[in-house]
Amino acid sequence: MKDKLILITNDDGVNAKGISELVGIARKYGKVLVVAPDGARSGQSNAITMTEPLYKTKLLEEDGLTIYKCSGTPTDCVKMALNNILDKKPDFIFSGINHGSNSSVNVIYSGTMGAVLEGCSQGITSVGFSLCDHSKDADFSLFLPFVESIIAKVSTQDLPQGVCLNVNAPIGEIKGVRVCMQSKGQWIEEFDKRVNPNGQIYYWMTGVFENAEPENTGTDEWALNNGFVSVVPTTCDLTHYESLAWLKKIGYEQVE
Amino acid sequence: MKDKLILITNDDGVNAKGISELVGIARKYGKVLVVAPDGARSGQSNAITMTEPLYKTKLLEEDGLTIYKCSGTPTDCVKMALNNILDKKPDFIFSGINHGSNSSVNVIYSGTMGAVLEGCSQGITSVGFSLCDHSKDADFSLFLPFVESIIAKVSTQDLPQGVCLNVNAPIGEIKGVRVCMQSKGQWIEEFDKRVNPNGQIYYWMTGVFENAEPENTGTDEWALNNGFVSVVPTTCDLTHYESLAWLKKIGYEQVE
Repeated sequence: MKDKLILITNDDGVNAKGISELVGIARKYGKVLVVAPDGARSGQSNAITMTEPLYKTKLLEEDGLTIYKCSGTPTDCVKMALNNILDKKPDFIFSGINHGSNSSVNVIYSGTMGAVLEGCSQGITSVGFSLCDHSKDADFSLFLPFVESIIAKVSTQDLPQGVCLNVNAPIGEIKGVRVCMQSKGQWIEEFDKRVNPNGQIYYWMTGVFENAEPENTGTDEWALNNGFVSVVPTTCDLTHYESLAWLKKIGYEQVE
Repeated sequence: MKDKLILITNDDGVNAKGISELVGIARKYGKVLVVAPDGARSGQSNAITMTEPLYKTKLLEEDGLTIYKCSGTPTDCVKMALNNILDKKPDFIFSGINHGSNSSVNVIYSGTMGAVLEGCSQGITSVGFSLCDHSKDADFSLFLPFVESIIAKVSTQDLPQGVCLNVNAPIGEIKGVRVCMQSKGQWIEEFDKRVNPNGQIYYWMTGVFENAEPENTGTDEWALNNGFVSVVPTTCDLTHYESLAWLKKIGYEQVE
């Protein structure tokens, strides 16, 4: 088993507790390269850095573990690892363990999952791990056996091409694992209005998440709210295939 | 027809040529609110601003048209419009017209499409428009009749819940419209290495796009390469439904 090449990143930054827990497990399965942001990049989605230079710094190189920090986003970190550090494609990309949930619609904002979708688009088996606890000193201990089981699983059984996994865990006792769909939901934002010392009005964006289908037992939100780890098969192909025939039928190909 | 409330944003910034072309068409269909970034935000995906304050500035208010610039990302602009400017949900969100392609895997990096996915997650009919020409003075004239036809189409026929449209146009003569799937493809990045005046090594990330299925006539890349406007039904639900049963079968629910 210990022959894999594993790339690890996150969006909480190279010094976060969650990434060190993930590295600890991944090392049992092979050589680990960490390329992670030099600070917090939460909410960075699949953002790429186009108008700024990127810096990388090697922080550690020891037997089976090399760690770089990078000045960019999680997606930049994956691109830099694949194209500027590694000589061959890694077997896996693991991202996290995120401090905070990436379930439901959070998957589209998440830098953790941005890195996973980037790996998926590059044809690499990629998994994002998140714990529903934002605190810096979050306790990952109850989640770790599940993280390890899922890593063991993907290392013996390939995921379908174009499919990655979004794995989230509840806080506290875990009853088991549920394979789920992404729950429908949305954020309702609030804009906290303030005045800066120069007299200009500015806003802090905050918000509350609303689960649009709380009764649906097949969703990741239901799993998490009921003590289960959620595993959502996730794709970087955003095509809504069911709508293709319908759009043709209602005349989109006859416009103009 | 001229009774709709339309929110417009983009990722090239409020002063880009493409957004003014889109506003010109949208005004025929109702009241237009523009909330767009104060400068270029290409490649910002669904990034949200969490650690910086947000500023908004009203630039124009005239009959049927109000324009704000915002210091955030395209997704921030949509959130600010919905929660801090408008009293009711807009009927439509249109994003663009982007200077540059957002076909294939570019959809996951695109700030233009980030705004569209945000609208989609909020249950609002949302369409992104992009022209495969990055230049600042790109000529949108041949695309505009198609933009208008598609706006007319969505204003008379609701899209399914959770589905938005990713519309791209080739440069030059347009033969018609194709309803397509997102082409599989990936970027191969290069890191242009330089040294700054302080002696530090830095990199500019550049890249080339590789279409993984050039022969597939059902894809957006094929449509664009053959002179057609591509319309891809796109979803913010990233669940790969076909894999749900398979993951259960291979034992994901029995791990740990």
